[in-house]
Amino acid sequence: MSAIHTLSVVGLGLLGGSVALAARRRRAAARILGTDHCPAALDRAREAGLLDEAVTGLRPAVEPADVVVFCAPVDAIARLALSAAPFCRPGALLTDVGSTKARIVQDLDGRLPPGVDFVGAHPLAGSEKHGLEHARADLFDGRLVLLTPGPATERAALERARAFWESLGARAQTMAPEEHDRALALTSHLPHLVASALAGTLPPEWRGLTGTGFRDTARLAAGPPAVWAPVFRANRAAVLDALGRLEGQLARFREALGGEEALLEALLVEGKRARDGLPPA
Amino acid sequence: MSAIHTLSVVGLGLLGGSVALAARRRRAAARILGTDHCPAALDRAREAGLLDEAVTGLRPAVEPADVVVFCAPVDAIARLALSAAPFCRPGALLTDVGSTKARIVQDLDGRLPPGVDFVGAHPLAGSEKHGLEHARADLFDGRLVLLTPGPATERAALERARAFWESLGARAQTMAPEEHDRALALTSHLPHLVASALAGTLPPEWRGLTGTGFRDTARLAAGPPAVWAPVFRANRAAVLDALGRLEGQLARFREALGGEEALLEALLVEGKRARDGLPPA
Repeated sequence: MSAIHTLSVVGLGLLGGSVALAARRRRAAARILGTDHCPAALDRAREAGLLDEAVTGLRPAVEPADVVVFCAPVDAIARLALSAAPFCRPGALLTDVGSTKARIVQDLDGRLPPGVDFVGAHPLAGSEKHGLEHARADLFDGRLVLLTPGPATERAALERARAFWESLGARAQTMAPEEHDRALALTSHLPHLVASALAGTLPPEWRGLTGTGFRDTARLAAGPPAVWAPVFRANRAAVLDALGRLEGQLARFREALGGEEALLEALLVEGKRARDGLPPA
Repeated sequence: MSAIHTLSVVGLGLLGGSVALAARRRRAAARILGTDHCPAALDRAREAGLLDEAVTGLRPAVEPADVVVFCAPVDAIARLALSAAPFCRPGALLTDVGSTKARIVQDLDGRLPPGVDFVGAHPLAGSEKHGLEHARADLFDGRLVLLTPGPATERAALERARAFWESLGARAQTMAPEEHDRALALTSHLPHLVASALAGTLPPEWRGLTGTGFRDTARLAAGPPAVWAPVFRANRAAVLDALGRLEGQLARFREALGGEEALLEALLVEGKRARDGLPPA
């Protein structure tokens, strides 16, 4: 039995495609619609057959929906949701996959028509790969989805959002949008920045001298700039703060390399302990 | 037909164990001996059955060998080779797996008994995992091994070293020890330093908010400090130089986040291009 009748996905990239595939595999919705402002993405979705209908236009895509998931760059989500909401049925639940939350929640909290609810969400799932062709039905399996209610979010809407994301295989956890952005600046945006900076330091003539170490440390740099630039902009202050912490740690390494012998071991042990202490993948 | 009769491996961790396993699988040696200064490592090697004989003591391990591979931390390799060489047969070839080369080659070049040759080697293979239990027969398959002859290295010895490493499945490439250390400071030692620094900035209460991105970017931090501290020390100047390049790139990100809008995209595109341009894993 499907928990919801019609699910609409707005934005058909890696995450939007994976929402559709996961919903279908787990029978989380009886009918799955999707739309994208890019005609080529709609064509690819039709070819891939991962939707019941690939719809042209935001209004026809959201009108019949019980749940709408916005899978767009973070600087487009609030605008899309505000455009879509007037056409949504009373009782419709809107949610998203944006990597930053404070600004999106602020732009939408208490500003939607009566009966239409938005609950911000951020699934900690993804890949440096992008595009519908990399979408996977198991992308959310066992992954954490952070739900970030605002002051105006109804408890019932939050519970529906939790149930929806759990129906895709994720584990849901609630946190304040601002706390989310501070934490993710360090746990997600900083790794991306560091990977990109590391890749950017590599002289082309040394490419052949990289091994799996360089490759993995720089993996995130392959992510799409069009997705990541808005994330950094939306979370500027917290990312700068996280970057400051990293620069501080690098300065300690510099000091250790300059002759503070015991500090070098201490830093490496500290890093190893932290990495070993991460939850299993 | 084995290319060599007796192979001896000095140091039975991930790399030493993998040299033994690869040599056995590819029949690169008729007989494989190994030793380690740590009795527990010898016991593990005996239990794992990856050697024809696990030998106690350096002298009995190297006396019968045609090829000796030193798989120890970089600050121990030259000392071990100098201690072993007087007991080696004329015609014995010594090689190693150290991640830095200039100092080791300098300490050994032209300083071994007549008829005993050393050719420095650095297989770009490994893992954040360590210890014999993670050794793999395919660790060197298709991997690059950098050979770093010194001024006194005979051409014939270099060719024997190339043939030996290729017999384990690796591709061999020759470069000067100093050039090796400058390049690897950036392509290998810097990623390790960055991974460790990133892991070290993570407040324990945010561990649960990391995903595969943080995990992979910080993967190398799990490597053994006892192996990596000597690498950083042996290659101090080049690592500081590589760190300076990274700090410069991070400063550009800081500038971009401070309001240089176009720079942010440019940096992300630059990083993506570099990462996408890496040779396949």
